[in-house]
Amino acid sequence: MVTKGSKTIKGFKFSARAAGIKKSGKPDLALIYSEVPARCAGVFTTNKVVAAPVVVSAPRIRRGSCQAVLVNSGNANACTGEQGLRDALRCGELAAGALGLPEDLVAVSSTGVIGLPLPMDKFERHIGQLAGDLQAGAVEEAAEAIRTTDAFAKLSAAEGEADGKPYGVLAMAKGAGMIHPNMATMLAFVMTDACVEAGFLDQALRTAVDGSFNSITVDGDTSTNDMVLVLANGLAENPEIVAGTPAAEAFQGHLSRVLLELAKMIVRDGEGATKVVEIAVKGAAGAAQAKQAARSVATSSLVKTAFFGEDANWGRIIAAVGYSGADVDPNRVDIFFNEVQVVKDGLGTGKELEAKATEVLKTPEFTVTVDLKLGEGQGRYYTSDLTYDYVKINADYRS
Amino acid sequence: MVTKGSKTIKGFKFSARAAGIKKSGKPDLALIYSEVPARCAGVFTTNKVVAAPVVVSAPRIRRGSCQAVLVNSGNANACTGEQGLRDALRCGELAAGALGLPEDLVAVSSTGVIGLPLPMDKFERHIGQLAGDLQAGAVEEAAEAIRTTDAFAKLSAAEGEADGKPYGVLAMAKGAGMIHPNMATMLAFVMTDACVEAGFLDQALRTAVDGSFNSITVDGDTSTNDMVLVLANGLAENPEIVAGTPAAEAFQGHLSRVLLELAKMIVRDGEGATKVVEIAVKGAAGAAQAKQAARSVATSSLVKTAFFGEDANWGRIIAAVGYSGADVDPNRVDIFFNEVQVVKDGLGTGKELEAKATEVLKTPEFTVTVDLKLGEGQGRYYTSDLTYDYVKINADYRS
Repeated sequence: MVTKGSKTIKGFKFSARAAGIKKSGKPDLALIYSEVPARCAGVFTTNKVVAAPVVVSAPRIRRGSCQAVLVNSGNANACTGEQGLRDALRCGELAAGALGLPEDLVAVSSTGVIGLPLPMDKFERHIGQLAGDLQAGAVEEAAEAIRTTDAFAKLSAAEGEADGKPYGVLAMAKGAGMIHPNMATMLAFVMTDACVEAGFLDQALRTAVDGSFNSITVDGDTSTNDMVLVLANGLAENPEIVAGTPAAEAFQGHLSRVLLELAKMIVRDGEGATKVVEIAVKGAAGAAQAKQAARSVATSSLVKTAFFGEDANWGRIIAAVGYSGADVDPNRVDIFFNEVQVVKDGLGTGKELEAKATEVLKTPEFTVTVDLKLGEGQGRYYTSDLTYDYVKINADYRS
Repeated sequence: MVTKGSKTIKGFKFSARAAGIKKSGKPDLALIYSEVPARCAGVFTTNKVVAAPVVVSAPRIRRGSCQAVLVNSGNANACTGEQGLRDALRCGELAAGALGLPEDLVAVSSTGVIGLPLPMDKFERHIGQLAGDLQAGAVEEAAEAIRTTDAFAKLSAAEGEADGKPYGVLAMAKGAGMIHPNMATMLAFVMTDACVEAGFLDQALRTAVDGSFNSITVDGDTSTNDMVLVLANGLAENPEIVAGTPAAEAFQGHLSRVLLELAKMIVRDGEGATKVVEIAVKGAAGAAQAKQAARSVATSSLVKTAFFGEDANWGRIIAAVGYSGADVDPNRVDIFFNEVQVVKDGLGTGKELEAKATEVLKTPEFTVTVDLKLGEGQGRYYTSDLTYDYVKINADYRS
């Protein structure tokens, strides 16, 4: 799918190197390049401690135009003071020099250890070759080079059409699901050859991030380096996609789907995770309350261990809703595992349906729906099971 | 220490039975009894879904007098509807009958599986023997019987003196530390023979709980069954302890120390935990912000894995402070492992001090101090290391 997707994206090239920033000697430097300046939008960390590459890149992205992104893994260039800022600027300068671009068209991004200075000699030594190696087909190598603790590289792609002109959306991400992914940097880079109006591109990215990366991590628990960028170079030559049109709706759909796919890969990459579970809350007093309740269930260690234990332990779910802060009337709550109702009006529906729910729990991907029956609010979160040894104690607690 | 403490406490008796509520056949029923009605105070779950025993007991405790507490493990009697309420009332009725007490002097408490009806036949069958077995020395058996996933029973004791009259404080708890102890019920019962003024007893309990159990769990992440009770039967015959006196200060000290000791035992009981770490934040803009920042550090999986890896990874600490929501100026933060300063004004102090900090990390109990240098706010949280296999990946990330 990735290859299929990437084929349709005009004007983007990629390269990767093992520059020795990671002690393991694995690839740790990636370059993303567009043959022409691309319109861009970004979502950045909300952490009050902001890493140098974000300080340097965020204002450049906000100016709306970007042609290259230099990404390194192995060192986050965070908590590195003024030297860190100088190093981040120098990274951009090196990439700009090697590519013959103005500096303000280059974004830089880093992930890895905090508090150590960037080994600039390695950037100086490898940037020339990195620029020289750029090719359209090397997206998988780039995705590989931005990994840190990820068990696998993460790529996703989609193909769309705007007024008869085909375009592609291609994205890579790094990040591994954990109980609290609170400091594991999440990076994602989206490339599209569609021509998209600048304001709508920004809005579409925020909508897509809200429904994907912000539905797997705990709000506010962001690393110092988090960054999601979209570059739209317009080489598909479609009429500009503007908000409120069918073409905009379609583009939003593709972008959201691609980012959701990456987000689910991050969930699945939780060490040892065997299941991806959607927690869907409806009937809440409002959308924010629905998301709050869904998040509470999705981040409960005991709920997640029950998923691992394939135990339809709805008591843990109802309790997690109870402490979420969302309005809840315990005597009205309904709970479903896929289509199987295990709780009606706050009480269990019996052993037969619970046995059916256990069958659902044995599948690798399913949905838990909680209906609070109080209003129209809906929200969802994605989570994994907890499979680590220690949680077996909780998973087996009921048996 | 427990035995020593319990000897000095007049008029309290305990008993325990294996009633078959737990499938394991282990002790699951405990009775706490005071020979005379005791003044009492309680702190109860803030979960919006409240288990039946809490619904029944909270108003009784708020009336200020209690003579017996019947506690079962193996079944939480939560999400059990009207039947659950009837069963909780019946439990109190059974204990009152067996002890010859009015029902409103009996509190009931349950912990275990949610959503299943209490096996009332087992209560009916065992209550007589349970009441008959009461003895002053059986506190350890009672503490044993309230365990669920706890690796060990938890008891703590202190001896005090008020106007020349010695008194004792004895407490038991159940609960095991987890990343989020969000649904693992926390129960604690404190017995003292001191004579304590009712309003001050309530205030002293809240102060002690705030500095202990509420400094290890994530605020708001309470189970449906959480309950902390203190019973003061006055048999030490000291002049009534009233607020604002040296005797009150001393009593507060004993109560706080006993509950903190239990809370640390709960932290230590995190499956596989090898270290208990105090996270002390000072210099915050206010006390609430200090506690917020301390909690953020204490609940970060990545910080906790670094403790396990004995890695002085202060970057993870500074980042957890950064996303806590507390005011922080990254360029002013100082961080210490015990007395060893690893961060000054937001920057690392170098390899030599980091090596010294690593020595601190090798000890089983230490303090991480974060000085935000913004104001006078102080707060602390207690946490454990994360030792599970999966986190080894994060613990080894830097090496």
